[in-house]
Amino acid sequence: MAKPERHVFVCVQSRPPAHPKGSCAGKGSMDLFRAFQNAFEARKLWGRFALTNCGCLGPCETGPNVLVYPDGVLYANVGENDIEAIIAEHLLAGQPVRRLYPPAEVWPNDP
Amino acid sequence: MAKPERHVFVCVQSRPPAHPKGSCAGKGSMDLFRAFQNAFEARKLWGRFALTNCGCLGPCETGPNVLVYPDGVLYANVGENDIEAIIAEHLLAGQPVRRLYPPAEVWPNDP
Repeated sequence: MAKPERHVFVCVQSRPPAHPKGSCAGKGSMDLFRAFQNAFEARKLWGRFALTNCGCLGPCETGPNVLVYPDGVLYANVGENDIEAIIAEHLLAGQPVRRLYPPAEVWPNDP
Repeated sequence: MAKPERHVFVCVQSRPPAHPKGSCAGKGSMDLFRAFQNAFEARKLWGRFALTNCGCLGPCETGPNVLVYPDGVLYANVGENDIEAIIAEHLLAGQPVRRLYPPAEVWPNDP
């Protein structure tokens, strides 16, 4: 395989329903991850880009969280409707989707 | 939180014992991930660096796999004895541990 141009990590951490931190999986991130997989399949992104589910990224309160490397850009409260923008604007065009940025104190996307 | 200087992803993908692809978890990566957590704790690396477990990274045959971003450096067949080198040489000193590189056709760490 080649080194991916960009690598998308989707948090699928789960916690018990009553857990005070909540979790990305509790907010639908497993379905989000599957929708990303379907989008990768439909747009034939595999190889050029990579997609991996992952455990807790830290800021559970803003989940579902999606982290894109090597940029180190974190997206917060991501829904299935945001996938197209992340793919078209960020992965393919190299322009991160600023409207999905968390507050800078959660994760400072800009240098 | 701050953006981590480097982010370590440890594959903890599991598969049924008889699965032909094998898996990183089947080769001890859950213990490896916990050992990384303990090393982060002992060396007080949290904050400056991040550590996250993740799903399949692709080259299952060379697992346990550990991927470090933003460098995009993949380490293969990582054992607990390799953690100190990855932390001291790569995370802290910025020099990837070349002896842990997979074959270039698996993942081309060098440009």
